[in-house]
Amino acid sequence: PKVITLPGDGIGPEVTAAAVEVLREVAPDVTIEERPIGGLAYEAHGEPFPQVTQDALKEADAVLLGTVGGAHDSPWNKLERRLRPESGLLALRKALGCYANLRPVRVQPGLEHLSPLKPQLARGVDILIVRELLGGVYFDGDRKIDGDTAYNTMRYTTAEVERVAKVAFWAAEQRRGRVTSVDKANVLEVSELWRRDVQALRDREYRSIHLNHEYVDSVAMLIVADPSRYDVIVTENLFGDILSDLAAVIPGSLGLMPSASLGDGAGLFEPIHGSAPDIAGKGIANPAAAIMSVGMLLRHGLKRSDAANHVDRAVALALREHPTRDLGGTADTRTFTRAVLESLG
Amino acid sequence: PKVITLPGDGIGPEVTAAAVEVLREVAPDVTIEERPIGGLAYEAHGEPFPQVTQDALKEADAVLLGTVGGAHDSPWNKLERRLRPESGLLALRKALGCYANLRPVRVQPGLEHLSPLKPQLARGVDILIVRELLGGVYFDGDRKIDGDTAYNTMRYTTAEVERVAKVAFWAAEQRRGRVTSVDKANVLEVSELWRRDVQALRDREYRSIHLNHEYVDSVAMLIVADPSRYDVIVTENLFGDILSDLAAVIPGSLGLMPSASLGDGAGLFEPIHGSAPDIAGKGIANPAAAIMSVGMLLRHGLKRSDAANHVDRAVALALREHPTRDLGGTADTRTFTRAVLESLG
Ligand SMILES: CC(C)[C@H](C(=O)O)[C@@H](O)C(=O)O
Ligand SMILES: CC(C)[C@H](C(=O)O)[C@@H](O)C(=O)O
Repeated sequence: PKVITLPGDGIGPEVTAAAVEVLREVAPDVTIEERPIGGLAYEAHGEPFPQVTQDALKEADAVLLGTVGGAHDSPWNKLERRLRPESGLLALRKALGCYANLRPVRVQPGLEHLSPLKPQLARGVDILIVRELLGGVYFDGDRKIDGDTAYNTMRYTTAEVERVAKVAFWAAEQRRGRVTSVDKANVLEVSELWRRDVQALRDREYRSIHLNHEYVDSVAMLIVADPSRYDVIVTENLFGDILSDLAAVIPGSLGLMPSASLGDGAGLFEPIHGSAPDIAGKGIANPAAAIMSVGMLLRHGLKRSDAANHVDRAVALALREHPTRDLGGTADTRTFTRAVLESLG
Repeated sequence: PKVITLPGDGIGPEVTAAAVEVLREVAPDVTIEERPIGGLAYEAHGEPFPQVTQDALKEADAVLLGTVGGAHDSPWNKLERRLRPESGLLALRKALGCYANLRPVRVQPGLEHLSPLKPQLARGVDILIVRELLGGVYFDGDRKIDGDTAYNTMRYTTAEVERVAKVAFWAAEQRRGRVTSVDKANVLEVSELWRRDVQALRDREYRSIHLNHEYVDSVAMLIVADPSRYDVIVTENLFGDILSDLAAVIPGSLGLMPSASLGDGAGLFEPIHGSAPDIAGKGIANPAAAIMSVGMLLRHGLKRSDAANHVDRAVALALREHPTRDLGGTADTRTFTRAVLESLG
């Protein structure tokens, strides 16, 4: 099988290099090829998702992404929208047809103290957020700034709702069998369609799943006040962007959060943290989330769950024995990665 | 001066009655008239914002609202959208021209233990969220469900952005002089306009204010991980709905959260908690937020800051000496209200 890596900007190349070492160790038969994305791709090729990258994806079985984007004051942010690093990311998701973004939020036993929440609230939290990734207000439709007025259109179709809801129901079947669908149906027509279609799919094909519907404002509260009430959360693109980042603070470090984006073709696997330009190139970035993304790549992309489990266990061990600075420890990128490799080898 | 009360549904009537007692005590010259809103207004008049209420507002100097909406499985939720309780609330805001919703989030000294956050994170939090309340995806424009497709339009104009940003800058001048404007400018054109116009207004008229811009997903994280970094937050309607509810959990009880909605005419003052149908009519609802909303009504609606300060102090004292059940105490609605009245008298 073939994996394309897209290291990207900031700390992306460092954490991706660490992740690739781990991938080579557990799956030596995999062919790995690297391509540019984001700001550095713009510098080299004049666009953030260049043809050379697009072509390579056609043969990929899975894609491992680093991080994309510059500092707050980067000149990249002043480019016209379609040339900015983030547009490369959106185009990549679209090219791969990745409509379902999976973000597990798990508080590792023994690491409760890292959470901003009281330990008794953080303990045992195990949520999977499934975010729709191609539609809603992110879609390419009617959008513009016209002098003193700007608008975007939030849109969903039944087909878009059903395909991502299926992923959520399927995931819940492997977990605790509960799905919370999040919307703002008391205000938005789009949410009314969302709620109707998710419920109809459940009633038609997933009767064993316990489904409930909650408003996005209420979920934003409850995910902090009582996170243990959630198993699988499924929601549209913008709500998912906000809620998945919010939930990601519960374990206490973004450095612990991998993600998988699944859809029509090859899946896309990436840490959820940003490009952290302030620490880029210093060799101190925490590669745990990138390595955990390799775990998700093995499980969902290459269907090798044994190898995935090995990686997950090795990361958990390394986190306990060689925590990085963001976790209050002293390990740098190299030390942490070596610890993972040793416990794998 | 004249105040119209709209007790609404669920626990609305109980907490509004308590708030009215306090208002009469500190402002005996105020005329108070009650009108229906929400689900009960629909039952009585066939619509959630009936003419009899609309007419009364024309002579109001301020409006005190209770809570609106039925239980999860209420038949009101099955009505066509324009007849539902929430539509009454949206129509009320619009009729009053209330474009700026102010939500103070303050952790009271000595009550840090109520927060879901670690006490060291909760201590000293003092944020004012200013939410735009009439525009964005809530506005009346292009929206519909059409078979298998639904859409809503998110829209803003420069005039809408500037008027709410002015409220935020004005509020920051009375506080610590810092405003964080929240958007999703890396994806949305509407946010690009928002960011541009807020910055231009700052540069033109509020040079002493320190303004920065952050993405909504990032703020959702940081408001939990590091809430003390915020002074005033200003944002559009939907983001403000989510973030203000999220921030409201920090003090640990929605029962402590008042709000003010200001605009062209009379201001609207209301607790942010819901109608809590499960405990309605039992006399145990915490009326603190409704009474604190009287404080905001006195300060912003009637420009009586001395009376407002008296109310705020009396509530703080009552919270310490007679906490209600949601705060781990035993006081019922009556006992708590009497405690406030005694310390005022
Ligand atoms: C960078 C941005 C376009 C992106 C998004 O909003 O999808 C990011 O916030 C994410 O969540 O991956
Ligand atoms: C009930 C609903 C329409 C309302 C809103 O979203 O504005 C509520 O959530 C609020 O925040 O006051």
